[in-house]
Amino acid sequence: MQVYYKCSRCGFSAETNIWLWRCPKCGGPIDVVIEGLKLTLNGRRDMWKFSSVIPAKPLVSLGEGFTPLVRAGFLGKNVNLKLEYLNPTGSFKDRGSAVAISKALEFNANTVVEDSSGNAGISVAAYASAAGIRARIYVPKDAPEGKKVLIKYLGADLVETQSRAEAARLAVESVSAGDVYIGHAWNPWFLQGTKTLAYELLDQLGHVPDAVVLPVSAGTLLLGLYIGFNELMNLGVVSRLPRLYAVQAQGFARIYEEIHGKYVGEPTRIADALRVSDPPRLNQAVGAIVNTGGDALVVNDNELISAWKYLVKRGFVIEPSSAIALAGYWELTRRGVVQRDEEVVIVLTGNGLKYIDLMSKM
Amino acid sequence: MQVYYKCSRCGFSAETNIWLWRCPKCGGPIDVVIEGLKLTLNGRRDMWKFSSVIPAKPLVSLGEGFTPLVRAGFLGKNVNLKLEYLNPTGSFKDRGSAVAISKALEFNANTVVEDSSGNAGISVAAYASAAGIRARIYVPKDAPEGKKVLIKYLGADLVETQSRAEAARLAVESVSAGDVYIGHAWNPWFLQGTKTLAYELLDQLGHVPDAVVLPVSAGTLLLGLYIGFNELMNLGVVSRLPRLYAVQAQGFARIYEEIHGKYVGEPTRIADALRVSDPPRLNQAVGAIVNTGGDALVVNDNELISAWKYLVKRGFVIEPSSAIALAGYWELTRRGVVQRDEEVVIVLTGNGLKYIDLMSKM
Repeated sequence: MQVYYKCSRCGFSAETNIWLWRCPKCGGPIDVVIEGLKLTLNGRRDMWKFSSVIPAKPLVSLGEGFTPLVRAGFLGKNVNLKLEYLNPTGSFKDRGSAVAISKALEFNANTVVEDSSGNAGISVAAYASAAGIRARIYVPKDAPEGKKVLIKYLGADLVETQSRAEAARLAVESVSAGDVYIGHAWNPWFLQGTKTLAYELLDQLGHVPDAVVLPVSAGTLLLGLYIGFNELMNLGVVSRLPRLYAVQAQGFARIYEEIHGKYVGEPTRIADALRVSDPPRLNQAVGAIVNTGGDALVVNDNELISAWKYLVKRGFVIEPSSAIALAGYWELTRRGVVQRDEEVVIVLTGNGLKYIDLMSKM
Repeated sequence: MQVYYKCSRCGFSAETNIWLWRCPKCGGPIDVVIEGLKLTLNGRRDMWKFSSVIPAKPLVSLGEGFTPLVRAGFLGKNVNLKLEYLNPTGSFKDRGSAVAISKALEFNANTVVEDSSGNAGISVAAYASAAGIRARIYVPKDAPEGKKVLIKYLGADLVETQSRAEAARLAVESVSAGDVYIGHAWNPWFLQGTKTLAYELLDQLGHVPDAVVLPVSAGTLLLGLYIGFNELMNLGVVSRLPRLYAVQAQGFARIYEEIHGKYVGEPTRIADALRVSDPPRLNQAVGAIVNTGGDALVVNDNELISAWKYLVKRGFVIEPSSAIALAGYWELTRRGVVQRDEEVVIVLTGNGLKYIDLMSKM
């Protein structure tokens, strides 16, 4: 297959023999484009079962992907929960990190740099450690204490910042020779990892679901799904896309706002994993939703907490932010946008074990 | 297939139309024996892929089993890490709970009762919640705070006791009509769940490994492996057993002591998940080790902490107790008991995300 970079904004393109996380010409989001894609499945039991469509060697792996898909009859006849929180470090981010860090190794990086509200930082720190390279992670100081502790324990350098936006700015500014900036919200290789979720859902279900409902902040999983299902369309393996429903948190609903106009409401105090106020791939995320006939919606903290308690009390130990997907599903069925007999996948993205210390206070 | 209870001590046998967790005649450990076993694999991607050899319907499932097996070249050419900590509630106990709670549902239990140092309590609480029945969990008061909080959050009634032994005693005494005592250290159905690890290792590796090294306290995983590999022998699918190496914690090394005599040393202060001082299936555990040509060994807290930090800093977010298996593997290679080129599986049993709040203090 032929792999090259292409800027989604100005059309600039380049070979992938250099590390790019955004367009060097216009500063827009850059994509990794693959021509001559061929899908052949191997016997692996992780996301590298789909190696034939991943433009990276599996140089570092902690067993990412191949997470359970559980039928949830208590939610609806054809509702499935995709347990992405059972990835190695407790979030779907591991799919992206596995590819991005493998690629960083190909580029002989000494240190990877990342900014994160928590989960991506943990994931990048873990994969960097597994790869034997350094990681420097910028995290807003109000990220959950436990997530910050874990990043340090994984051997990474942790830098605390005043805000999520400052974390991103300082991370980029800090990059020097030998460093590689991951920037998962920008990074095109990261999306080549998250796209495996589309392949995996098809592999597990045997067909395309009618709708996928997922938590969205920067949109790395949303765009991964969109890329993956589009590749499957182009391959002729499937003949339609699932509707993608992006559920966003109060105060961090840029994708929703782009589609529906201003959302008025207090910033979330619960969904700490979903606090991206300026997603760099905003236009692409909107396009993914519109092109699939999906939608973006906002769920408030009360609905989120109800959904979280509901799932934990059924044995699904997820982090609060993840429960927003269920709250969104409930809203979609109330509106009649998702029919009760449709086949739906609700993606549960983060592990609740990271929040044990907070549970006693909630 | 034909399924019946058989006491491992006095030979008492009975049909499985009643709930037994130990022999009603002599009080010894009772087994579930299967005759006419047939192995046919189905397309599931959890431990119920091996439904044909599990004497229970999958009435409750959270996606247990099918955990990653990761090659660990940094430990040795043919060393594999089995990531049991990526089970739904963060420990291998989920295999046992899925079968035991499914069985409790068949027996129309209203409430399940369990005693635990933490992980089994979390697991039983989660599966009971998923099954829509009550759980009452007895836990020593010095169990990690986070584990106790999670048990409550999963909707179970938590009863704190002075010691692990008192937890067991009070749990048994509390059982009344409509209740079912799980008692995972005794329970024969629980072992029918943990045995799936043997089938899964064979399925993942394609052959029997030379040795399996695992943390052992009550021995529920050890015995599960032994039962599973023996069934595979009887089925004619494999022609030998792997050597089973049980790694125990200081002060809670009854299996070691039975084989080698008294171990002198302070009780562990780190391996909180391994503190069973009176394993009810002691003789069976010893038999499993001796019959496979394996051994029991004890690892001290310093070695354990070294192994734990070593693995976490390579991206494996495990709980401290689990790292005892790696410390044991190192000791076995030092002694030359395990050769460097042998194929070894090291089982990592519990998720470190439950310990985030403790990491800053370690």
